[in-house]
Amino acid sequence: MRVYNFSAGPATMPLEVLERAQSELTDWRGSGMSVMEMSHRSKEFVSIAAEAEARMRSLLAVPDDYEVLFLQGGATGQFAAIPLNLTAPGASAAYVNTGAWSKKAISEAKKYVDVRVIADEKDSSYSTVPAEGTLEVPGDAAYLHYTLNETIGGVEFPYVPAADVPVVTDASSTILSRPLDVSRFGVVYAGAQKNLGPSGLVVVIVRKDLLGQARTEVPSALDWTAMAESDSMLNTPPTLAWYLVGLVLEWVEQQGGLPAMAERNKAKADLLYGAIDASGFYSNPVVPHARSWMNVPFLVPDAALEKPFVAQAEVAGLSGLAGHRSVGGMRASIYNAMPLEGVQALVDFMTDFEKQNG
Amino acid sequence: MRVYNFSAGPATMPLEVLERAQSELTDWRGSGMSVMEMSHRSKEFVSIAAEAEARMRSLLAVPDDYEVLFLQGGATGQFAAIPLNLTAPGASAAYVNTGAWSKKAISEAKKYVDVRVIADEKDSSYSTVPAEGTLEVPGDAAYLHYTLNETIGGVEFPYVPAADVPVVTDASSTILSRPLDVSRFGVVYAGAQKNLGPSGLVVVIVRKDLLGQARTEVPSALDWTAMAESDSMLNTPPTLAWYLVGLVLEWVEQQGGLPAMAERNKAKADLLYGAIDASGFYSNPVVPHARSWMNVPFLVPDAALEKPFVAQAEVAGLSGLAGHRSVGGMRASIYNAMPLEGVQALVDFMTDFEKQNG
Repeated sequence: MRVYNFSAGPATMPLEVLERAQSELTDWRGSGMSVMEMSHRSKEFVSIAAEAEARMRSLLAVPDDYEVLFLQGGATGQFAAIPLNLTAPGASAAYVNTGAWSKKAISEAKKYVDVRVIADEKDSSYSTVPAEGTLEVPGDAAYLHYTLNETIGGVEFPYVPAADVPVVTDASSTILSRPLDVSRFGVVYAGAQKNLGPSGLVVVIVRKDLLGQARTEVPSALDWTAMAESDSMLNTPPTLAWYLVGLVLEWVEQQGGLPAMAERNKAKADLLYGAIDASGFYSNPVVPHARSWMNVPFLVPDAALEKPFVAQAEVAGLSGLAGHRSVGGMRASIYNAMPLEGVQALVDFMTDFEKQNG
Repeated sequence: MRVYNFSAGPATMPLEVLERAQSELTDWRGSGMSVMEMSHRSKEFVSIAAEAEARMRSLLAVPDDYEVLFLQGGATGQFAAIPLNLTAPGASAAYVNTGAWSKKAISEAKKYVDVRVIADEKDSSYSTVPAEGTLEVPGDAAYLHYTLNETIGGVEFPYVPAADVPVVTDASSTILSRPLDVSRFGVVYAGAQKNLGPSGLVVVIVRKDLLGQARTEVPSALDWTAMAESDSMLNTPPTLAWYLVGLVLEWVEQQGGLPAMAERNKAKADLLYGAIDASGFYSNPVVPHARSWMNVPFLVPDAALEKPFVAQAEVAGLSGLAGHRSVGGMRASIYNAMPLEGVQALVDFMTDFEKQNG
C-alpha cells in the first residue's frame, strides 16, 4: 500500500508517472531496451531529452532567449557554478539570507566572490522575507541571488525582487508549483528532487546573454556555456532522471499546467495552514504572506510530543513528517504530487492527535 | 523483444536487475513508496546506500584505508576534481595519453595544474599502451594519471604502472570486469553507465591519506573530503542511480564475483577478437596485449559498408554498433551485462555480412 509521503526531497511523485516508468522499464516503446540502457546520443534518447526540454519551456513559458540546461551536481553544484559562470575573480555579488539554503549558497559563493549580504532575516528568526522594494543592490554587484523558497524554514518570496543586475534564484522546492515569470530573472535553477522528479538532476534556466563569460577554471561539468553548446551533453547526462522529469512534466501538463497546479497547491496550503492556525495546539512561525506553499513546518506545544507525533503518523500511513534535523519540529512538504486527500488525511490525523494530547 | 545492446554507455544492464527494479518501482519492499521518493536520510535509503558500498568494497576487495564515494558529475567532473583535491596551485602532475579520454582528462587538468604528458601514444595512432616499466614520472609530480581503458580506442592497460607518487586511474569502462588491485592506486574512479548501472553517478575510491588537502576553491559537489565526511550526502545524492548500482553489484556477486566476470569477459573478448582476426575482412587496430575486453572497435575493408553493417545489424536485433562519431567504423561494447550469446549472435551476423559483402 502506498503511503502519503511528506518528505522534503527526494519526495513523493505522481503514481501515474511511476506506473508509466514501470511499464516501460525493460523495453521503452518497442526499442528493445530500457531508457537507462540507451546511448544518450541515440535518436530515441535525444527525442526524450528534447521533449522534456520543450515541455519545461512550454509550462514555464520560458522566453526564447533563455537556455534550459539539464545538469548534475544538484543546487549545491550550482552554488559554485553561479559565481564561476557569471563573474571574474575579484567581483562582488549581492545575496539575500532568508535561511538555511541561503546560507549554503552564500558560504559556497564566498570561495569565488566578495559576497555582500544585503538583507539578513536573522533578526526575524528567518520567519519572513524582506519587504518588497527594500532591497538595495550595490551597483557593482555582478548579480543578486536569493532563495525563492526555503525548504527547511518554509519561507517563500511572494514577489520577484527588482534589480538592475541579473537576478538569480534557487527555485528547487517551488518550481512548477505555480506560474513564474522567468523573464524577470537572469538565472533560475532547481534541483529535481522536489517537484520535478528524482534526485541527481538540476535544471538551470539561464538568459543567453549571460553565457560566454565563465572563468577558465570552471569545471566543465559546471560550465553553462559549454553545456548550452552541447545540449547538456558535454558528457553523459543523467539520462534516467531526465526521462523521469519528462514524464513528470507531461503529468503536470495533463493536470492543466501551472495555473491548475497553483490552484491545487493553494487549496492544499490553505487547508493545512488553516488547520494549524485554528488549532491553538499547532503553530507555524512564518508570517502569513511569506508562508511557503510547498514546505509547512509546524510545532506542537511540547517538544516531547514530536516523536510520538511522527511515529503515530507513520503508523497512520503519513510518512516523512519529522522536521529537518537542524531545526526539529515537524514539516509537511506538500509538493505538486501530494494530492489534497493526503493533506486532508494529515489534517484529520493532526486533529485526532490534538484531542489525545491537547 | 529485448535486443542485444552494444552501446558504449549508457549500456546494457542485466535483465534480472531491470526486472527487480521494475517489480519494486512503486513500492520498495513494503515501504509504501518508490526508492526514488525516499528521503536520502531515511533509514531505508541509508541501508540501500550502505549495502551498495559494502558490496563494492567486497567485490573489489577495497582496503579499509580507502573511502568509496558515490558522486555526481561523471568522470568529466572528476577530471577537475582530481587536481582540485590532490594539489595546490602551481603544482604539476604526470599524465599518460592513450587516446580520447586521456586527452579530455589532460585538457581539464590543465585548468588547474602544470600537466606533464610523460607518454603519448600518438605515434602508435593510439593502438597500444606504453610498455611496462617505461613510464618515468617526474619526482615533483603530485600524481600519475592514466586511463585504464579507452572506451573509444578500445585500448586497455594490461598492467598497473608503478610510481612513487599516487596513481590515479579512470576505470569507467572496465571496473568490475575483472579483479583490480585497488591497493596499487591512490584513486580509482568510474562513471557508472558502463559496468555499474545507469548514468548520473560516479564512484570514486580514494586512499584516505590523500584527503584533507583540497583547494579552498573546489566546488563542494566535487570535494572528496567533505563528501567522505558526509557519507557522500553533503547534498542530495543521486538516490535512484545509487540503488540501481546496488542491484547490479548484487547481480555481479550472484554471478560469482570478479573472477567469474573475468572468465566470462575473456571468453567473450576471445570469441570476438578471434572472429575479427580470422576473417581477413574485419580488422581491429589494437596490438593484442593492449586490447580492451570491454570495447572492441573494428573496421570493414570499405568505409561505404559501415552504414549497411550497422543498419542490417540493427534489424537483426544487434543495436549500438556504430563507432564513436569521432572515429567512425564499428564498435561493440561487451560489458559485464552482455551475455556470451550476444557476442555469438554478433559474430554470426558478421560472418553472414562478410559472405554477402566480402
